[in-house]
Amino acid sequence: MKVDVLSLFPEMFSGVFNQSILKKAQEKEIVQFEVTDFRNYTTNKHNKVDDYPYGGGAGMVLTPQPIFDAVDDCIAKAKGTTPRVILMCPQGERFTQQKAEELAKEEHLIFICGHYEGYDERIREHVVTDELSIGDYILTGGELASMVIIDSVTRLLPNALGKAESHQQDSYSTGFLEHPHYTRPASFRGLDVPDVLLSGNHANIEAWRKKESLRRTFQRRPDLLDENKLTDQEKKWLREIKEES
Amino acid sequence: MKVDVLSLFPEMFSGVFNQSILKKAQEKEIVQFEVTDFRNYTTNKHNKVDDYPYGGGAGMVLTPQPIFDAVDDCIAKAKGTTPRVILMCPQGERFTQQKAEELAKEEHLIFICGHYEGYDERIREHVVTDELSIGDYILTGGELASMVIIDSVTRLLPNALGKAESHQQDSYSTGFLEHPHYTRPASFRGLDVPDVLLSGNHANIEAWRKKESLRRTFQRRPDLLDENKLTDQEKKWLREIKEES
Repeated sequence: MKVDVLSLFPEMFSGVFNQSILKKAQEKEIVQFEVTDFRNYTTNKHNKVDDYPYGGGAGMVLTPQPIFDAVDDCIAKAKGTTPRVILMCPQGERFTQQKAEELAKEEHLIFICGHYEGYDERIREHVVTDELSIGDYILTGGELASMVIIDSVTRLLPNALGKAESHQQDSYSTGFLEHPHYTRPASFRGLDVPDVLLSGNHANIEAWRKKESLRRTFQRRPDLLDENKLTDQEKKWLREIKEES
Repeated sequence: MKVDVLSLFPEMFSGVFNQSILKKAQEKEIVQFEVTDFRNYTTNKHNKVDDYPYGGGAGMVLTPQPIFDAVDDCIAKAKGTTPRVILMCPQGERFTQQKAEELAKEEHLIFICGHYEGYDERIREHVVTDELSIGDYILTGGELASMVIIDSVTRLLPNALGKAESHQQDSYSTGFLEHPHYTRPASFRGLDVPDVLLSGNHANIEAWRKKESLRRTFQRRPDLLDENKLTDQEKKWLREIKEES
């Protein structure tokens, strides 16, 4: 997959793209990241990327020319791809894991990251294919939002995750939240690991984990529990959990 | 505000913390960021931060010792603060702008960023005050999520934003989504700015913007529209928008 990022702050990306799974995915040639300062595409003599809004008002607006030209260049270099051109924007569609899976099937993504400026509407209408938001909070710019999306998409690409990392996903497959984990030491600052986990009795351990998984789901995400779909044993545990709480 | 980050990938943060508003906020001494590799706090000879889970199973679990000791040290250095200790975690409470405003009132935040490993439950129970998630998608680690929270909190601190940046907030105050913006040139690749914005007639411009703001809200976030609260003019526009669409 080719991932182009257009930003006025390209240095923001280096730390994130050169560590951990994103770094390894580039080394394995699963993904290729290219961050471009779209100020380099301006044709005016002061390299201005924004200007006052037509009709008056406060704030600045990104002009269409550098972004149109930068996107054209990304497409020309990638030779024959039909990219998704993604604008990071608080008014955009909410990014979810389902959207990550959809984007992971593409061969070329282009992210446009504005900062506090507005976007000329012609960019939205004629260049952008997707407007996305990562959540209901205000960020300084689109850069962090695009990094979040790039991370969640890259880790879905085939062979991007090593064996250690891929276990993380397992915890999302049961429909319940994960049970608590414990590791060494068995006693730390007077805080002890539950006896059952040290017992070596695998049936008891399995039962404890299922019940604690149910308890955490009941406490934090009761919306995930459909009582009609619980087994008899799970219903019994849920009654106990409600009595205990 | 003091912000401590505990991570096994401290290099991920440098690009983000040294640009734009986060950089300026540090220069103005509004906020002080410190990123610490909690591997430096291990007391075992191989500097291991994780271990196998008690009770068996796949995946690794972060041991309590380095994180307990690193948090203790952050607190000791900050002298007298009572920090919020935030664990980035998919099971956590959803981060929102309201939570950003709440955290912006604190004097000391400590972020614990795990990677694909699990956390020993004693960390959650005895060190952490808040478990937060930035959205319904899977990330490689807590680092990007903590950067998102730090960005949204820092920009709320008094004097963090310059004049140019602070206009961005205005667009969230009307209850509707922002109207489209246009800037120079008036015609670009055959795409023209709406005539009304070039007319110099301020009343017409104002009316166009209000109607387009209403249109965008109707198209993208109809849940924000309470028709009973609209003015008569807005109701008339909304009827026109529905006929036009």
